[in-house]
Amino acid sequence: MPSQLIDRQTNGVFIISATPFTETGAVDDASTDRLVDFYLEHGVTGMTILGIMGEANKLTAEEATGFAARVLKRVGGRIPVVVGVSAAGLDNLASLAHFAMDAGAAGVMVAPSPGPAVEDRVRGYFHQVCAALGPDVPVCLQDFPQTTGVPISAATILTLTRDCPQIVMLKHEDCPGLAKISAVRAGSGTADTPRLSILCGNGGLYLPQELARGADGAMTGFAFPEMLVEVVRAHQAGDPDRAEDVFDAYLPILRYEQQPGYGLAVRKAVLHHRGAIACPRTRAPGPKLSPTDEAELLRLIARTEKKVKEL
Amino acid sequence: MPSQLIDRQTNGVFIISATPFTETGAVDDASTDRLVDFYLEHGVTGMTILGIMGEANKLTAEEATGFAARVLKRVGGRIPVVVGVSAAGLDNLASLAHFAMDAGAAGVMVAPSPGPAVEDRVRGYFHQVCAALGPDVPVCLQDFPQTTGVPISAATILTLTRDCPQIVMLKHEDCPGLAKISAVRAGSGTADTPRLSILCGNGGLYLPQELARGADGAMTGFAFPEMLVEVVRAHQAGDPDRAEDVFDAYLPILRYEQQPGYGLAVRKAVLHHRGAIACPRTRAPGPKLSPTDEAELLRLIARTEKKVKEL
Amino acid sequence: MPSQLIDRQTNGVFIISATPFTETGAVDDASTDRLVDFYLEHGVTGMTILGIMGEANKLTAEEATGFAARVLKRVGGRIPVVVGVSAAGLDNLASLAHFAMDAGAAGVMVAPSPGPAVEDRVRGYFHQVCAALGPDVPVCLQDFPQTTGVPISAATILTLTRDCPQIVMLKHEDCPGLAKISAVRAGSGTADTPRLSILCGNGGLYLPQELARGADGAMTGFAFPEMLVEVVRAHQAGDPDRAEDVFDAYLPILRYEQQPGYGLAVRKAVLHHRGAIACPRTRAPGPKLSPTDEAELLRLIARTEKKVKEL
Amino acid sequence: MPSQLIDRQTNGVFIISATPFTETGAVDDASTDRLVDFYLEHGVTGMTILGIMGEANKLTAEEATGFAARVLKRVGGRIPVVVGVSAAGLDNLASLAHFAMDAGAAGVMVAPSPGPAVEDRVRGYFHQVCAALGPDVPVCLQDFPQTTGVPISAATILTLTRDCPQIVMLKHEDCPGLAKISAVRAGSGTADTPRLSILCGNGGLYLPQELARGADGAMTGFAFPEMLVEVVRAHQAGDPDRAEDVFDAYLPILRYEQQPGYGLAVRKAVLHHRGAIACPRTRAPGPKLSPTDEAELLRLIARTEKKVKEL
Repeated sequence: MPSQLIDRQTNGVFIISATPFTETGAVDDASTDRLVDFYLEHGVTGMTILGIMGEANKLTAEEATGFAARVLKRVGGRIPVVVGVSAAGLDNLASLAHFAMDAGAAGVMVAPSPGPAVEDRVRGYFHQVCAALGPDVPVCLQDFPQTTGVPISAATILTLTRDCPQIVMLKHEDCPGLAKISAVRAGSGTADTPRLSILCGNGGLYLPQELARGADGAMTGFAFPEMLVEVVRAHQAGDPDRAEDVFDAYLPILRYEQQPGYGLAVRKAVLHHRGAIACPRTRAPGPKLSPTDEAELLRLIARTEKKVKEL
Repeated sequence: MPSQLIDRQTNGVFIISATPFTETGAVDDASTDRLVDFYLEHGVTGMTILGIMGEANKLTAEEATGFAARVLKRVGGRIPVVVGVSAAGLDNLASLAHFAMDAGAAGVMVAPSPGPAVEDRVRGYFHQVCAALGPDVPVCLQDFPQTTGVPISAATILTLTRDCPQIVMLKHEDCPGLAKISAVRAGSGTADTPRLSILCGNGGLYLPQELARGADGAMTGFAFPEMLVEVVRAHQAGDPDRAEDVFDAYLPILRYEQQPGYGLAVRKAVLHHRGAIACPRTRAPGPKLSPTDEAELLRLIARTEKKVKEL
Repeated sequence: MPSQLIDRQTNGVFIISATPFTETGAVDDASTDRLVDFYLEHGVTGMTILGIMGEANKLTAEEATGFAARVLKRVGGRIPVVVGVSAAGLDNLASLAHFAMDAGAAGVMVAPSPGPAVEDRVRGYFHQVCAALGPDVPVCLQDFPQTTGVPISAATILTLTRDCPQIVMLKHEDCPGLAKISAVRAGSGTADTPRLSILCGNGGLYLPQELARGADGAMTGFAFPEMLVEVVRAHQAGDPDRAEDVFDAYLPILRYEQQPGYGLAVRKAVLHHRGAIACPRTRAPGPKLSPTDEAELLRLIARTEKKVKEL
Repeated sequence: MPSQLIDRQTNGVFIISATPFTETGAVDDASTDRLVDFYLEHGVTGMTILGIMGEANKLTAEEATGFAARVLKRVGGRIPVVVGVSAAGLDNLASLAHFAMDAGAAGVMVAPSPGPAVEDRVRGYFHQVCAALGPDVPVCLQDFPQTTGVPISAATILTLTRDCPQIVMLKHEDCPGLAKISAVRAGSGTADTPRLSILCGNGGLYLPQELARGADGAMTGFAFPEMLVEVVRAHQAGDPDRAEDVFDAYLPILRYEQQPGYGLAVRKAVLHHRGAIACPRTRAPGPKLSPTDEAELLRLIARTEKKVKEL
């Protein structure tokens, strides 16, 4: 299938996909297909797999490549798919990246390696990554210091996108991070620095503000992707009030999903509730909802659906 | 003035107070009085001063005691006031605590000291704290691992409130932390463990859920205290839908205030906008709003006010 | 080959093995054999493979099992071999563990999973691990908070070894950690808690003191294993002065190896210098010696050899 | 008394002073004088007070200024004294700095403020610090990421010393940090960057190597300052073997003192044992030696003294 690469103009909603498991813990192929269909039916313009939300670090290498191949086949080139390839060693990182690109991925996502948060180390790491990938693999730089423990300044991001032409996209999830979006947007697309695509994570918690500051869309796993899609559409259509009204209707459940470490279980429960996957379980050791959590979530879902109807 | 101590039944809304400064950076006495009045007019049932939000660690000892004395005098015993006394050394902690209690405080708030997050160390520390304070000073245990770096299990909290009778209140701001509220509520008020008052922080981001799980109210600094008051009132009146409707109307600006490290500048800007303090500045090095931030905030305030009218 | 399992009485020196790579970055089979021989010739009484020092997280699953199988075959049952199996997911952890035990390993080493450092979570994790392994796999609990970010109290270690009979050994590398050794030694081998074998890591930096406090030996990767062996032997023979004299002779280079994050490159350089492996490289991204580092190291090696001769 | 300011050529041994307390926990004036004399008698060429080792954060403001004034008076201008002034707020920082300089200090020591480890934030902070201090106060930049949580690259240090002429000295305690000394030494004293004085901390654990790489001396609190003095003297006299022989004789106790969080109790115990202070206690919550610890330490002291005689 012809691959559609991410580039510096890429925008829209790249949904971050969960990895569905069966009751016995195996990767669930049927649910994988159904989940891809669910995302496509709700209008996403891209997809990201094997991220933190995808429990990538709990898969075997075979499961990871198998899952990537199945998703890419089901998508069939209709939308670009980014594959998370962060790994402790560069060899494993490059190997998965090359597999994914050969299978039709649109690019790969890489976070800084753990270690001291000094700029020269981080810059050096991304130069090593790009050399290991080769120049033809587009890279989305994942800036998620709450999880990686490695904050990066806007200046370093701009230097990297200038020095490594294949770093074409920023997955922004620093928090607080609104000023960083303004800085990266102002500092790229200039005489000396090429434009950088910016897609925002953090569950979309600040999406309307991020779009207003120049972000190109969202890359996150909110289990109501139609909200992300409509917010970005309304914003692009010049209707920020509509964008924010839609956003606000979903915010109570969005902020509930956004609980660190625990949100994945919520997302899978919502996807399960909406029929997108057959089983909500995460791999051990992973979060799990108690009956109290489930009742709380059902109440939030019901309230959300009611509000959305009133929009 | 007769002091009204916090106890194991305390509930309601303890607003966490900012510390207002003048344009030249001095503690602003006139704004202190005005801010106390503002909080009282909006219906809070308690107040907490010299917390992290109060920039306590940037005050001199004289400024801290001066501010505490002025607040306590202005409050005049109408509501209980808790004073944050966390300090690197126990001598300084106890000295501020005794000053505050003598001046009419209702109790003191203490977070675990920095260090390895092992339960015996944390338990030992609170025993030392209680010994240094003497048995007559009620303690609110501040559980805020995102900032202290020291997570505490529900079991340790229960052990501490059992072993140290003066630890009567939990300021809960662990995140994710809903299951912890359920566990502490279920495990206290039992045959062997006395009831523990639980007030919730984190800007109130999960307040309706927290109340439903047995929290007694809020202890946080949201700059629209009337929301916290009405949510707790509606919940106590058995109207959780009303509680959640009110909460949802404010959630967009609440989640904006909740940005770690930066939220204080937002809160002070809102308090300034609402006329509660004369100057929004924080002490250096501290966060500051850019013109873009300010425009963004004004838009959120306007949207919030509109939604609130429609309630 | 008949496997020799670790148990609660195990003592001596379990050397932590490096994983040798060729100049092109492949696992070096010939050097693997040579390294096993080197360790055996220097008198170690056990071996630990696929730990942090073994760059386990940079191997593919096939490389990991291949390396384990080769080491176990070369060792041929002469000494017990512990295999590090820590992994983000329990399935991968158990799968490697069962492979290793089937191939003749003496036990597995497991560190706490990343996450909040609260005792109930850590205890729960080890219960999950033991259930996933089955009761016949002896476990060495790795307590290395500087790297895992999860400190554990002596009380939790004792509870775990009591509740999970297969947790028979502690790899101790907390720092400061001498008081913890005293506490674990005093609290195990009692009426209600079975004895726990304690082997010490941290490069051996406090080995004489650790032995004096009741540790059973060392589990670390110091590139002069003969020192560890002689120190433990002299201690067991009742000659602590000899133990400390030998230790002190090596201490300058030991403390040089002990630099966090960088020590692995030093160890591999020393092993290469001593002829134990053909190539000192680590997998990218990994530490590398500069010419200045190498000259510095050669000077330390020369001084060490001179001092050792004078013993 | 005429003050002797630190500058870009400053070298030698700046001992970091403990703050002695009486049995009842007050600052011990008599021991303060005795300790100053002890340090001077052992040949130090400078002193640093109110650092982390000085328990500065457990003193009241009055105690801190009182201690600084007493030390400066006792020193009487014979050696330069640097005063640690790190504080959460710039006002408190500047206020203590100006007090100290007026009382005859040679400069102040400042660590980066807590927060995200991004270079522009750290650079901005030091610009704010220098503005608050005024250009006449020489600054020693304390680079101690293990404690501050804020690593700084060599490039940022060089930029800062170039842009802020009053930053004349680096207290180096990054670890691993040898390559950083080489980088800072090579990058300062060049056409565009003025020379930077480098004094090394970390208890002196790598002092011979640090001197060989161009460090100007030590700034640390090892309780046998005569070792630091003799090592630096021998190095400056062109006798690195002598430097290293002396160093090695003390290394067993040095590495014992260097246990993070606990070393302060060891240092005070040694200073007490050597008659330099009347009471070894630290302020609560602080480390304390058990009888086992004390016996262990006495054995190490005895072995050290024996080895030193054999030099």
